[in-house]
Amino acid sequence: MRVTEGQRILLIDELGRKYLVRATRKPIHTDLGVVDLGSAIGIPFGDKLKSHMGREFTVLQPRMSDILQKIRRLPQIVLPKDAAQIVAYTGVGPGDRVVDGGTGSGSLAIFLGNLVKPGGRVVSYEVREDFARVAMENVRMAGLEKIIEIKLKDICEGIEEEDLDLVTLDIPTPEKVLPHAEVALKPGGYLAAFTPCIEHVQRLYSEFPAYKFTNLKTIECLVREFEVKPGATRPKTRMVAHTGYLTFARRV
Amino acid sequence: MRVTEGQRILLIDELGRKYLVRATRKPIHTDLGVVDLGSAIGIPFGDKLKSHMGREFTVLQPRMSDILQKIRRLPQIVLPKDAAQIVAYTGVGPGDRVVDGGTGSGSLAIFLGNLVKPGGRVVSYEVREDFARVAMENVRMAGLEKIIEIKLKDICEGIEEEDLDLVTLDIPTPEKVLPHAEVALKPGGYLAAFTPCIEHVQRLYSEFPAYKFTNLKTIECLVREFEVKPGATRPKTRMVAHTGYLTFARRV
Amino acid sequence: MRVTEGQRILLIDELGRKYLVRATRKPIHTDLGVVDLGSAIGIPFGDKLKSHMGREFTVLQPRMSDILQKIRRLPQIVLPKDAAQIVAYTGVGPGDRVVDGGTGSGSLAIFLGNLVKPGGRVVSYEVREDFARVAMENVRMAGLEKIIEIKLKDICEGIEEEDLDLVTLDIPTPEKVLPHAEVALKPGGYLAAFTPCIEHVQRLYSEFPAYKFTNLKTIECLVREFEVKPGATRPKTRMVAHTGYLTFARRV
Amino acid sequence: MRVTEGQRILLIDELGRKYLVRATRKPIHTDLGVVDLGSAIGIPFGDKLKSHMGREFTVLQPRMSDILQKIRRLPQIVLPKDAAQIVAYTGVGPGDRVVDGGTGSGSLAIFLGNLVKPGGRVVSYEVREDFARVAMENVRMAGLEKIIEIKLKDICEGIEEEDLDLVTLDIPTPEKVLPHAEVALKPGGYLAAFTPCIEHVQRLYSEFPAYKFTNLKTIECLVREFEVKPGATRPKTRMVAHTGYLTFARRV
Repeated sequence: MRVTEGQRILLIDELGRKYLVRATRKPIHTDLGVVDLGSAIGIPFGDKLKSHMGREFTVLQPRMSDILQKIRRLPQIVLPKDAAQIVAYTGVGPGDRVVDGGTGSGSLAIFLGNLVKPGGRVVSYEVREDFARVAMENVRMAGLEKIIEIKLKDICEGIEEEDLDLVTLDIPTPEKVLPHAEVALKPGGYLAAFTPCIEHVQRLYSEFPAYKFTNLKTIECLVREFEVKPGATRPKTRMVAHTGYLTFARRV
Repeated sequence: MRVTEGQRILLIDELGRKYLVRATRKPIHTDLGVVDLGSAIGIPFGDKLKSHMGREFTVLQPRMSDILQKIRRLPQIVLPKDAAQIVAYTGVGPGDRVVDGGTGSGSLAIFLGNLVKPGGRVVSYEVREDFARVAMENVRMAGLEKIIEIKLKDICEGIEEEDLDLVTLDIPTPEKVLPHAEVALKPGGYLAAFTPCIEHVQRLYSEFPAYKFTNLKTIECLVREFEVKPGATRPKTRMVAHTGYLTFARRV
Repeated sequence: MRVTEGQRILLIDELGRKYLVRATRKPIHTDLGVVDLGSAIGIPFGDKLKSHMGREFTVLQPRMSDILQKIRRLPQIVLPKDAAQIVAYTGVGPGDRVVDGGTGSGSLAIFLGNLVKPGGRVVSYEVREDFARVAMENVRMAGLEKIIEIKLKDICEGIEEEDLDLVTLDIPTPEKVLPHAEVALKPGGYLAAFTPCIEHVQRLYSEFPAYKFTNLKTIECLVREFEVKPGATRPKTRMVAHTGYLTFARRV
Repeated sequence: MRVTEGQRILLIDELGRKYLVRATRKPIHTDLGVVDLGSAIGIPFGDKLKSHMGREFTVLQPRMSDILQKIRRLPQIVLPKDAAQIVAYTGVGPGDRVVDGGTGSGSLAIFLGNLVKPGGRVVSYEVREDFARVAMENVRMAGLEKIIEIKLKDICEGIEEEDLDLVTLDIPTPEKVLPHAEVALKPGGYLAAFTPCIEHVQRLYSEFPAYKFTNLKTIECLVREFEVKPGATRPKTRMVAHTGYLTFARRV
């Protein structure tokens, strides 16, 4: 496969750093010199470009994980390590119908949109217009505008969709969505709430008994990275110790 | 949607326990009494069956996460929490072409097969015929026989597919697959090796420099579950402390 | 040094298993045969006894860590890994005056008593007479009856000692002790509360502002054990994921 | 108790920050104003000094944990959380005879020296004269010069002391000390090696079988700190993910 003009491409430099750009007749300035992006047009993926300093940049097709690293981020985002646990626990996949409450930068919607395509759909609710605008740009960058719809509405006031496989929440008051999620989810569908503080979890569990949910489960996911060098293998010195709690519940 | 005769269904009892069965004219014996599975035929999903003791069982469509919990397991399997990290780091999704080395019970192949469908494909290599047979049964149970192929071959001796997005390994000598993965992966494609011991990781890193891989990353993923009761919220007393290390590398 | 009659000794068998016994003219029955404990009398520490099956048992002086492993345990105890964090954070050591609320089996009192001797003192409050009796036996077994006093009183109703370096709490309502600890601790002294649930921590912090404490800190301590075998080094599969939260505060 | 001239005192300001100083007729400059340290002389511990800006500083007797936070640190130190696990596993306490290999800044020697006093003793080996000099200053600051001796020698070449309760190691080649520790430790005494990389652990275990050690145990200790605010309780976002592995072995 060859690069076409205007196509989004990923460059990886000799140090493994990534640049998500378009193959247009423009230069990009990097630590390792200036690269003429136009020279990528027509070459096969996997070929290399050279900067004016002679340093090499491999031209790759971006994957969704590359795009998620490069989207414009708003303050709090659901990290891929946590979004992935939603896959593990709910089995979300191609064809699923998902509602996402609290779009933010859209990173969770994009992560899920990529997994439910081509037959599925993600509708994401956001109350802040500025967030919705950033998210929409990110959705377009991910090429998922046919899969993901962003609604400027408060999910605490209602869910308009029905027969859903999954409702994800990243909002300060997830307990207010329980009555709506109960109705909107199909039997066997899942609720997944991401919440930074334990008080959110406590409030959810004090409300759950009033609604038709079972298999309640709350987890935290810790990912530890390693340094592997000859004779010197060890976990990295510092890590992210907390992003949030993930609470799952199943509609019956 | 209504249950058809012979269809695979999931029952959830009043205690949240799951039973993956078929809607056939047979009884199932449980702690909460005998349930006539034939009475599920023709009812809508979400309805309840009653046991002879009057206890209720909700009838649901099984999701892939339910099936992965119920497949026949061989000794070591890649748990969903770890498989999910492969999604997080490699962005594997619909349409991807995957080779999986070391089928085992097929749980990783099934997890990935569900995510790459309908357009993608998973070819899984296994040297033990008995494992391959169990895995094939599990693949059929998951309804993924058009997506997943199981080959009775040793992946250390070669990969026949090419232009791959992802090669996953769960074998004792992942380092022997590096020359084959280098050729079989498309530029930008990922290698993901799951290995229980740190010596596997050390051997992989001593071989990596000979091949065209970048962005090496090794992680471990710890999931901690919580007990949330009124006035008594705390992590569970015991947890799985180790399944394996996940090592990622990107073909350039 | 030689073993005297009636002295408490530690035997370690060929598999590393420990037996805390007295050097008296009695036999002990083990998996590896019967050992005549009387034959230990007069031999130097480090020598070995033989069972009737010819298996060896090394005779050692027990250390406090051995005794803490062998005391009679009541349901919840503060594990050494957590007790040790009290040393790390408060600097408790020889000569310190400590009050301990909620004696239980006495394991924390014994751990601390061993560290503050010979000049320090631990007074431990317990409301249940049966617990106090078990704890007193354990204290005698540890040889710390001159250092540790057990009082059959409710620490929530008052602390009779004053000028304390440390108050430790392992009770359901640690917040009720704050007014007493404020008075009983010397300026610069520490409060350390061990609590299994996060609600205890939340209640403590809602009360702290009413009292003269600073440097509030809450931690959890996770200890992961490894299997190290040639070519097969890895964390153990399962671990203790939670014992309790440790909350520290300093009297100013 | 009242402050005497020249005595080491700890000031805590209104924000909980600590200053370890001497009560001498000198000023100290802080963010919250200038404090005349001479005005502390003769006042009782627990009283407050005022800065020229009217901000309060409580005068406290420093504890060993304060001193360990304020000593001059060289690159790698054994943190109190890890040093404390040595207490948990080996039961080190008053009266113990300890040899410490790799003094560094002396922080582990000081931690242990404080616990074995008044009857015990710590001899610490260091090959670098500059490190030994810093450590000696730190030992004097901790007031432990009668308990701790620093030797300018390589512990890999021999241990001159005998009948030891504990040998601690924080050096790159702990395996070279095994023959010496075997002889120097009393039966039942412990070896505790702190090592940042897993390769150190692997080398230790490949040597252990040649010496008289049992009860081998390797752990890592993770401490996670919490933020507790009304309605917003959660682990802190980042944590120290790795300091080192602790390996214990017992001389039989």
